[in-house]
Amino acid sequence: MNEVMNCALYRDGIRVRDLDFNHLDEVPNAPGQLIWVGLLEPDAATLAVVQRRFGLHELAIEDANHAHQRPKLEVYGDTLFVALRTARREGGYVVMGESHIFIGRGYVVTVRHGPSQSFAAVRARCESAPKALAKGEDFILYALMDFVVDSYFPILDEIEDEIEKIEDEIFTDHFVPKDIERVYELRRELITLRHAVFPLLDICTRLTRYDVPLVDRDTYPYFRDVQDHAIKANDTIDQLRETLSSALEAHLLLSSIRQNEVTKKLAGWAAILAVPTAIAGIYGMNFRHMPELEWTFGYPAVVAVIVGACGYLYYRFRKSGWL
Amino acid sequence: MNEVMNCALYRDGIRVRDLDFNHLDEVPNAPGQLIWVGLLEPDAATLAVVQRRFGLHELAIEDANHAHQRPKLEVYGDTLFVALRTARREGGYVVMGESHIFIGRGYVVTVRHGPSQSFAAVRARCESAPKALAKGEDFILYALMDFVVDSYFPILDEIEDEIEKIEDEIFTDHFVPKDIERVYELRRELITLRHAVFPLLDICTRLTRYDVPLVDRDTYPYFRDVQDHAIKANDTIDQLRETLSSALEAHLLLSSIRQNEVTKKLAGWAAILAVPTAIAGIYGMNFRHMPELEWTFGYPAVVAVIVGACGYLYYRFRKSGWL
Amino acid sequence: MNEVMNCALYRDGIRVRDLDFNHLDEVPNAPGQLIWVGLLEPDAATLAVVQRRFGLHELAIEDANHAHQRPKLEVYGDTLFVALRTARREGGYVVMGESHIFIGRGYVVTVRHGPSQSFAAVRARCESAPKALAKGEDFILYALMDFVVDSYFPILDEIEDEIEKIEDEIFTDHFVPKDIERVYELRRELITLRHAVFPLLDICTRLTRYDVPLVDRDTYPYFRDVQDHAIKANDTIDQLRETLSSALEAHLLLSSIRQNEVTKKLAGWAAILAVPTAIAGIYGMNFRHMPELEWTFGYPAVVAVIVGACGYLYYRFRKSGWL
Amino acid sequence: MNEVMNCALYRDGIRVRDLDFNHLDEVPNAPGQLIWVGLLEPDAATLAVVQRRFGLHELAIEDANHAHQRPKLEVYGDTLFVALRTARREGGYVVMGESHIFIGRGYVVTVRHGPSQSFAAVRARCESAPKALAKGEDFILYALMDFVVDSYFPILDEIEDEIEKIEDEIFTDHFVPKDIERVYELRRELITLRHAVFPLLDICTRLTRYDVPLVDRDTYPYFRDVQDHAIKANDTIDQLRETLSSALEAHLLLSSIRQNEVTKKLAGWAAILAVPTAIAGIYGMNFRHMPELEWTFGYPAVVAVIVGACGYLYYRFRKSGWL
Amino acid sequence: MNEVMNCALYRDGIRVRDLDFNHLDEVPNAPGQLIWVGLLEPDAATLAVVQRRFGLHELAIEDANHAHQRPKLEVYGDTLFVALRTARREGGYVVMGESHIFIGRGYVVTVRHGPSQSFAAVRARCESAPKALAKGEDFILYALMDFVVDSYFPILDEIEDEIEKIEDEIFTDHFVPKDIERVYELRRELITLRHAVFPLLDICTRLTRYDVPLVDRDTYPYFRDVQDHAIKANDTIDQLRETLSSALEAHLLLSSIRQNEVTKKLAGWAAILAVPTAIAGIYGMNFRHMPELEWTFGYPAVVAVIVGACGYLYYRFRKSGWL
Repeated sequence: MNEVMNCALYRDGIRVRDLDFNHLDEVPNAPGQLIWVGLLEPDAATLAVVQRRFGLHELAIEDANHAHQRPKLEVYGDTLFVALRTARREGGYVVMGESHIFIGRGYVVTVRHGPSQSFAAVRARCESAPKALAKGEDFILYALMDFVVDSYFPILDEIEDEIEKIEDEIFTDHFVPKDIERVYELRRELITLRHAVFPLLDICTRLTRYDVPLVDRDTYPYFRDVQDHAIKANDTIDQLRETLSSALEAHLLLSSIRQNEVTKKLAGWAAILAVPTAIAGIYGMNFRHMPELEWTFGYPAVVAVIVGACGYLYYRFRKSGWL
Repeated sequence: MNEVMNCALYRDGIRVRDLDFNHLDEVPNAPGQLIWVGLLEPDAATLAVVQRRFGLHELAIEDANHAHQRPKLEVYGDTLFVALRTARREGGYVVMGESHIFIGRGYVVTVRHGPSQSFAAVRARCESAPKALAKGEDFILYALMDFVVDSYFPILDEIEDEIEKIEDEIFTDHFVPKDIERVYELRRELITLRHAVFPLLDICTRLTRYDVPLVDRDTYPYFRDVQDHAIKANDTIDQLRETLSSALEAHLLLSSIRQNEVTKKLAGWAAILAVPTAIAGIYGMNFRHMPELEWTFGYPAVVAVIVGACGYLYYRFRKSGWL
Repeated sequence: MNEVMNCALYRDGIRVRDLDFNHLDEVPNAPGQLIWVGLLEPDAATLAVVQRRFGLHELAIEDANHAHQRPKLEVYGDTLFVALRTARREGGYVVMGESHIFIGRGYVVTVRHGPSQSFAAVRARCESAPKALAKGEDFILYALMDFVVDSYFPILDEIEDEIEKIEDEIFTDHFVPKDIERVYELRRELITLRHAVFPLLDICTRLTRYDVPLVDRDTYPYFRDVQDHAIKANDTIDQLRETLSSALEAHLLLSSIRQNEVTKKLAGWAAILAVPTAIAGIYGMNFRHMPELEWTFGYPAVVAVIVGACGYLYYRFRKSGWL
Repeated sequence: MNEVMNCALYRDGIRVRDLDFNHLDEVPNAPGQLIWVGLLEPDAATLAVVQRRFGLHELAIEDANHAHQRPKLEVYGDTLFVALRTARREGGYVVMGESHIFIGRGYVVTVRHGPSQSFAAVRARCESAPKALAKGEDFILYALMDFVVDSYFPILDEIEDEIEKIEDEIFTDHFVPKDIERVYELRRELITLRHAVFPLLDICTRLTRYDVPLVDRDTYPYFRDVQDHAIKANDTIDQLRETLSSALEAHLLLSSIRQNEVTKKLAGWAAILAVPTAIAGIYGMNFRHMPELEWTFGYPAVVAVIVGACGYLYYRFRKSGWL
Repeated sequence: MNEVMNCALYRDGIRVRDLDFNHLDEVPNAPGQLIWVGLLEPDAATLAVVQRRFGLHELAIEDANHAHQRPKLEVYGDTLFVALRTARREGGYVVMGESHIFIGRGYVVTVRHGPSQSFAAVRARCESAPKALAKGEDFILYALMDFVVDSYFPILDEIEDEIEKIEDEIFTDHFVPKDIERVYELRRELITLRHAVFPLLDICTRLTRYDVPLVDRDTYPYFRDVQDHAIKANDTIDQLRETLSSALEAHLLLSSIRQNEVTKKLAGWAAILAVPTAIAGIYGMNFRHMPELEWTFGYPAVVAVIVGACGYLYYRFRKSGWL
């Protein structure tokens, strides 16, 4: 069965041996012992095995069956169900996955959905620190949550870089319609990330304040640390969203200023060029009796008038900043 | 009487027999027994029968008489009154209905108003799980609420699809006034849905935390599950509303960029075309003494000047991105 | 004295007799007895009579003297002072009045200011239900508050109708500056109504939750019912305000789209018409040596060029959607 | 010493005699006795006298030394420190001052900074009501706070009048750039006032709810009354700010409608006038072979064509509402 | 080791002697004794010394290793960890640093990162007041926090000055695209400052209300004072942000008014100048039979018509405010 990524038995923080997932039922409970099962997009049958062995609540199993949960912490008797949203950036786009964690006395079950990162790194880190691992199931929960939260930061850094480039373009007038589409996409991604991060604050608060089973007082600072990172991720997201809004607003203002300048220039040159057209039009009329046409210096005089009028207008527009 | 959709007696979770609504009074109370009455837009007389039989509070009956309640939970002594808003999509438009639920020791009464979906499916589901049904009235309340909340999701999916189409149109410049009217309608529908969903969060909180009669501790996870779905629906609604706002904003920005380009183009070509008009106007004057007119190469020289001036302007505008 | 609208003695919910307001002092207190005084814009002397007879707090009397209170509930020892804002629509405009209610053991005093509706209807309703009236002073308070809150709904319905008409005009392009002034007025009226409705939520909460004297546990559902109506009025107001904002935004967007179209059309036709003007200008010059002028088919050739150039431009503009 | 405005001894609510501020130390404490000191922008030495005599906390003295405190209530042991912001309107502009009040068993010290109003009126009012004054230090605090809060209303009334004038100008199209600057100033003044008023709500709440020394239960309704006035002032400020925002928005919309109309008119007349220019240009060409020029009725025919074309365009533009 | 800025032993508030950081381990704990260590961007080894000597929590050390913490208060057993963000203005730009403070029974460790100000001034101030210093570790924490919070105000004053200059430019029409970039930068700096200041409110609340170890009741007013300053800084930041928004809005409005005026002027003059062009064009046609051309007063008549038409248009535009 390909969907079982990991299934091992730990005693006092040390990995004892791998278990055969299909014979999980035959492993009895024992104090100081921990079974850690990792599943990837399991089918209903696989989940049923887990449910039977560890006595999980039907609603939690239902949640784990369907992805698209929002991050949440649910307490069923003395077991915990935690749903987290994981993020990865592929080809410049954020893609979201999900991880569901069941924690009970003596076991941890993780279920991954979608494009999430493997928890192998977390397992390796835990196994390399048997003392910490021996603290129990709550410490594994902390390690998993810490891993998920920390995975948001490189993504946020990349988005921040992109936003900085967009800012530069706005103020150097190289901003094109394509950029607006990109801003729009970035906004959506930030909203998606926010929906992944924000519920974590409440989850951590509940893990450290409320009467939650399994979580030891000593682990509280660790969950508060996760919460702190989540708050930081959340603040960064809010700040990036504000930056985008504010950049678009700056663009709109600049655009309005520039539009205004163009309109003024247009109006100015139109006025200047309309003068020779109008005057020349008059002396282009075919009336028989137009005395000025006979004058020897009629033509230079009219040209002088035209040049003078245009020059005066140019001077006036220049002074008032239109040209 | 057409408005009585269902009227049955259950014992230990199993449907015993249908009851004659008009002789409800003659059915005595008994432990382990449950009467489930389903009404569709009942008149005052029908409601009076129910009120008399189960001793419902006059204010609850008044509420059930008039539709247009907002979702709420009201406790009258040891009975509960829950008002829910149901939604359906007909011909591309969201239409709202209402369901009122009275729960007391030994009975459940549902009253439907407007274009709501039949609760037959809920009854079928409950009857197929006698163990669950035997848990009592609170489980039926859960089943009804779960059904109502789950009915929002297909509607939200349809709206999401429509919004995605609108987004595509915005960025490909196929956005027409008609679309704005549609965006406007979608916004209103989302607000209407939000008014249906949002109060559910509070209702579920009160059902699981406060000293509410009839609701058993074991049913708490179920109501928290309903709440979770309601939160998800609510989040989706907020996200869709944000998406619409942000799409309109993007449209406005694109529109301003394009308007700016049009204005620049207009200004540029106006300037280029004003040059031959002004120069030709001058040599169209009828002065007797205009030496240039007599020159052999006067005409080609002027044409060259015109072409040169226009060419230069074109080059300048091109370089500065106006044309 | 014209300002005394009503002054009656009730015993066990039944109106016993009218009292002479000026001899109120001579009526002794007695259990099961209730004095109900209704005043309309009373002067200080009249209020002083009431204050002396029922021992009202000086701050409450001061409040009742000046209108322009915001809705509030104040507890002075074992008496309650409730200020409400009432609304009426006159000539298409919302006008606000005020009602102040003093409730103590054995008496109810109502003071109306401004264009409020008479409480005669409330009195009639109460007197027709002696059982309810016998419940005591808190029931009268409920009846008065219920009456005031219900009076908001017809006003909100009228405003809603008007807003729907404005929406239609926006999308059919019949929206004129006058309409904006109207939208602006409607917004102000909605804000005024909100200031009347919103504080009621808190007043009702306090009447049903806090240690407020005089209010019986049995009356709690009634005040919660008033609160429910107030929430509904409040939601409607918020929704109407959102509708107006969103309608104005839609108008702005439509307006920008249409402006864009006008600008494009203007630019297009200006370009097309500038072509014959420029070409004809050139052949209108009076140079002696312009070979084309001598050609037999010079004129038709130029006309053909003009028509061709204009036609080509028209085709191009048409294709790109400018014309 | 000019900065000591008042320094008097009260016994049982009656002013006994004025005290020499420099010999304050020699006045012993006694039950039923109250010392009321009023200072105007005192220097550090003067404040030191007060601090020594009444044992004030160093942080409070530091606050009183520097103005620019935000309104606050601080409890140091069994003394209260209250900072208030006072407002006056001078030459159409709001100017803010500050008042600091120290209250302890047997004394009240007021310190005024900046352009605040004299508290002489408060003293006079208190002295004219010995019974109230005998209630103690908390009643003086009430009287001072009441005075400060009531001083906001005439200012808000003036601002409201000005805003109404601006509204009228917006809808009659007499709105000029100068007005925008004024709107901008009014907004800032409202924000400044809000910063003065808003913290009062919390101060009053704490004075009536929390375990604050010196404040008697009987004085609670008085502080709630002050709070009520503060809430009203706050509501008015919010409403005026909303009115300004909404007026500016209306202006922007009207402006966009009018701009649109101007653009349409411009486009319309430009098109109409371009027709004779283009046609006349063609017949102004100097080709030798232009048969129409020889026709007897060529000229009237062309004039007729021009008039016809212009008339047709005019009719079309008129019909579509452009002209 | 360059990164140890200070390492001293205090007894009863008096500096006894400097300690050798590398032999910190050899200094035993003793009542009434305090070790104060100041580090600047320490490496992991240096932090390890401190951790070993004072038994600090691993998570706190991890935080102190990486800068980029948000301000926070963390309690580990009976030690406190406080992270603060410090600000400095260099070359017109705000640069942020960080300070981490560990407080435990008998020691204070400060760790500075980035461009923060030296705490030497705080040490000097504390040492000059041995009585205050003798109050204990919490007083040093107060002194450090007070120092950090007070360092925000000169920066805010500078930003305020700059914003006032920008306001002036907006209303005198000297606002250029460069200014918008500046406004944009100022906004970002204010947001950054807000992220430094805002969490302090909560930190101070927790230091004065919750069950935090080490903090004495007598120090509460001091932390409330810090909180007060933080609230003031926060209010100032919000007010400056509002001012910037409102200034930009005013600019947009003014810009729209001015654009409108330019458009009207453009339209007006275009109409006036189009008249002679069109009329002269007609009499410039070369028709053989144009009777007006033969009239003796044809030319002056046409000129009179032109002048009259233009004058009439000018008068009309003038009256309607277009010119």
